[in-house]
Amino acid sequence: MPALTLAELQAHLGGTIRGDSETLVEGVASLDQATPRQLSFLLSSSYLTQARASLAGALIVPDKLDVELPQPCLALPYPHAAFAHAVALLQPAPPVAQGVHPSAIVAADAKIGPDVHIGPGVVIGSGASIGARCRIGPLSVIGPGAEIGEDCLLHPRVVVQHGCVIGKRAILHPGAVIGADGFGLAWQEDGWVKVPQAGRAILEDDVEIGANTCIDRGALDDTVIETGAKLDNLIQIAHNCRVGRHTAIAACVGIAGSTRIGAYCQIGGAAMIIGHLNICDRVTVSAGTFVAKDIREPGVYTSVQPLMKHEDWKHNAAHLRHLDALVKRVKSLEAKLKEN
Amino acid sequence: MPALTLAELQAHLGGTIRGDSETLVEGVASLDQATPRQLSFLLSSSYLTQARASLAGALIVPDKLDVELPQPCLALPYPHAAFAHAVALLQPAPPVAQGVHPSAIVAADAKIGPDVHIGPGVVIGSGASIGARCRIGPLSVIGPGAEIGEDCLLHPRVVVQHGCVIGKRAILHPGAVIGADGFGLAWQEDGWVKVPQAGRAILEDDVEIGANTCIDRGALDDTVIETGAKLDNLIQIAHNCRVGRHTAIAACVGIAGSTRIGAYCQIGGAAMIIGHLNICDRVTVSAGTFVAKDIREPGVYTSVQPLMKHEDWKHNAAHLRHLDALVKRVKSLEAKLKEN
Amino acid sequence: MPALTLAELQAHLGGTIRGDSETLVEGVASLDQATPRQLSFLLSSSYLTQARASLAGALIVPDKLDVELPQPCLALPYPHAAFAHAVALLQPAPPVAQGVHPSAIVAADAKIGPDVHIGPGVVIGSGASIGARCRIGPLSVIGPGAEIGEDCLLHPRVVVQHGCVIGKRAILHPGAVIGADGFGLAWQEDGWVKVPQAGRAILEDDVEIGANTCIDRGALDDTVIETGAKLDNLIQIAHNCRVGRHTAIAACVGIAGSTRIGAYCQIGGAAMIIGHLNICDRVTVSAGTFVAKDIREPGVYTSVQPLMKHEDWKHNAAHLRHLDALVKRVKSLEAKLKEN
Repeated sequence: MPALTLAELQAHLGGTIRGDSETLVEGVASLDQATPRQLSFLLSSSYLTQARASLAGALIVPDKLDVELPQPCLALPYPHAAFAHAVALLQPAPPVAQGVHPSAIVAADAKIGPDVHIGPGVVIGSGASIGARCRIGPLSVIGPGAEIGEDCLLHPRVVVQHGCVIGKRAILHPGAVIGADGFGLAWQEDGWVKVPQAGRAILEDDVEIGANTCIDRGALDDTVIETGAKLDNLIQIAHNCRVGRHTAIAACVGIAGSTRIGAYCQIGGAAMIIGHLNICDRVTVSAGTFVAKDIREPGVYTSVQPLMKHEDWKHNAAHLRHLDALVKRVKSLEAKLKEN
Repeated sequence: MPALTLAELQAHLGGTIRGDSETLVEGVASLDQATPRQLSFLLSSSYLTQARASLAGALIVPDKLDVELPQPCLALPYPHAAFAHAVALLQPAPPVAQGVHPSAIVAADAKIGPDVHIGPGVVIGSGASIGARCRIGPLSVIGPGAEIGEDCLLHPRVVVQHGCVIGKRAILHPGAVIGADGFGLAWQEDGWVKVPQAGRAILEDDVEIGANTCIDRGALDDTVIETGAKLDNLIQIAHNCRVGRHTAIAACVGIAGSTRIGAYCQIGGAAMIIGHLNICDRVTVSAGTFVAKDIREPGVYTSVQPLMKHEDWKHNAAHLRHLDALVKRVKSLEAKLKEN
Repeated sequence: MPALTLAELQAHLGGTIRGDSETLVEGVASLDQATPRQLSFLLSSSYLTQARASLAGALIVPDKLDVELPQPCLALPYPHAAFAHAVALLQPAPPVAQGVHPSAIVAADAKIGPDVHIGPGVVIGSGASIGARCRIGPLSVIGPGAEIGEDCLLHPRVVVQHGCVIGKRAILHPGAVIGADGFGLAWQEDGWVKVPQAGRAILEDDVEIGANTCIDRGALDDTVIETGAKLDNLIQIAHNCRVGRHTAIAACVGIAGSTRIGAYCQIGGAAMIIGHLNICDRVTVSAGTFVAKDIREPGVYTSVQPLMKHEDWKHNAAHLRHLDALVKRVKSLEAKLKEN
């Protein structure tokens, strides 16, 4: 593992050093786990007690945190992002093999860019193109005509279906499925007819897609995940959705067909958003929240039941079935009191 | 891409032509995106404004829509289904390779029907059978003794576990897992004992299963998905469930063990249904709804919290913990007013 | 299939025989489906009517069930666990091939223990180790440096990412992803920076992980699933979580980052638990429940909306937006009545 002084870290990350700039660190760890040769970080003053007790050799801290700490510090405006860069410097990912593994099945007319790694058992369809420096993990499948931009990292067992388009620097985690058919059904007499899904799934640049997440292809138009959007695991994005740039979506979220999520949104885990809605920019949807109507103003939106002991819940929840009646009883009391 | 006149489309789909029957279309698109050489459709009068503004060369419309439109139209009783057929005619799926790819690992005693395509890296176990004209996508695994009916389409990376049975014309999307063990646990002293799952997962004819959806095998009896049922992505069907014919289930739904869903039901996205329930035929469960008791009458059922601004939610939701007390307070007010 | 007398079953399972100990059974089935040559079971007196009508040749029953039954019985303190053992004896799983399939891609420096089976198309990375008697299903991927303990069963298409550790006797179902990156993002000016995920995912001994379930690796520290924990399908365990020993988690559950679930807990299907929480030992979270705060006392906790007909729901749910106002109206009525 590489070792760097605070001064060397500063050369990469910027910021201001507080304390000994020659302090050497050779790895990263959490405040609780760090040893005197490791770098750690704190995001706000809520972690001050932990920071003071930490054995870490140096810390990355927010520059607006004007507090003495026992450790030498590198102070920056975006401490979490700076720490992310420091992790990449101090604990670089293991190097990846080069070249096309002999067990990969690559169509003769697929275009493979320079310095690409294609792992064991990968299947690349006719007319597909793989951009320069891409790394395609073992047992992934790139369908006919699909396009993968430069510098993408596909982990093992990713599927990109035919004709779909992935921008530059995408990261796709194991089990992700890009461009499966949307759920298009038409009723006819006594059964469902499948509506062929003729659109594509398009991921713009710098998109990350979590493990076992599904981005369906469009029915006629395309499904689009805009630049810089980040999606966690086990998410469903239905056909014709559009997820705005730099929007982050936590795990287990479902977004039904043709819904548009704005830019800079944050969608909490397990939130569910029905179809054909518009969510404007800079909306935060709380975890577990169900969204069934448009959101036209930035802000935080929520719709969850508070947790109760089961016995309490039984007594309270039963009344939810009679809330309308309760309101009428209150109204009638109000009328009577007015009469009196 | 093939080009067809409205008269030729009518020969395939039936219906009545309104306007020039020689109008030529050579592709499909949404009302907003269609060009003068493309076919589009509308399902009801709510889309009339969009239809009038559309550049589409021709439209498929409901026959009961008695309205003049600028475009030549083909009017039919099931316009969405007719459009689905038209998409298949005008934008046929790319042709699939024939034969067994040399990299596939097919057990010597597996039965492979005529005109089957088996993709790269597919693994087919001992005693499995693959019906005529099936297409098995790259890196799929068909377990020992599993049976796949005629004309099935398995996309890449599908798993059908040992002994499971898939009917005719099934479509299984990437990452689908048919016949994994149900979650069978028995407590013994200080830990869980695994209950072997000895049943099968059975899909009858014309079933579609979405990406990364799981249909568990039965514990003793079988798990059954009946004819024509359609399941979207990331759905969990637990052991011993039965999903009735022509029932459609949207993404992210979970159905716990031994529950039976009737025929012609529609289960909205992210609905969760607990185990050992009976849901009768023709029930619609709204998206996001939690079902914890039998449903014995057809109709629409719902159980979701309305969305609020987070600040409003904080004020309102706190009272849910005291609803029982509130009802008692109202009751006491009513009693006092009666006394007065 | 092997045939066993009740006396032979008793030799394996313990317990007391009621009736003819020479009764021969040669398979297992549910009470409803069992034939006279098959063994079935009942867990409590609620199944007595079904048991009396059952054609089963013999039954496993709870020893505290002091009731005459028409069938010979084997009575034990843990009837479900005993039945689980009986299924394994009477319907043993099909034997697995031995050795490393020639199509598997095993790194030259991977350590493969004795009597291991490695299926077709499996990819095992550099420095990985596979314990004795493991069975690795077709098309699974074991990343560089990952360690799999003795006697594990990996079904087809499992991914264990680099450096992760799996204990002894684990069962991993198809599509499971162990050790994908956690969802670590840091905001910087106008976009998200990826926080490298430097921790591992660790599964202790006797853990079972369902189909398409995701256990993310830690950000800095590790994600840990403790001994004997059992997880169903389509579950998300985020980075730095800890799931206590012998805790069982049903399908579709999501647990956000850094949350700790105690030992002997049961988490119902589709429950969602937010990040940075502590749930103590022996907590039951009901299905569909949303947990947004620590739980410090054992017990059953719930937070779901009751199901209603949609029309009733519309009338009742609307008032949830005005619950705070309603409470104020009741308070004002109470004040007025006091004045009177």
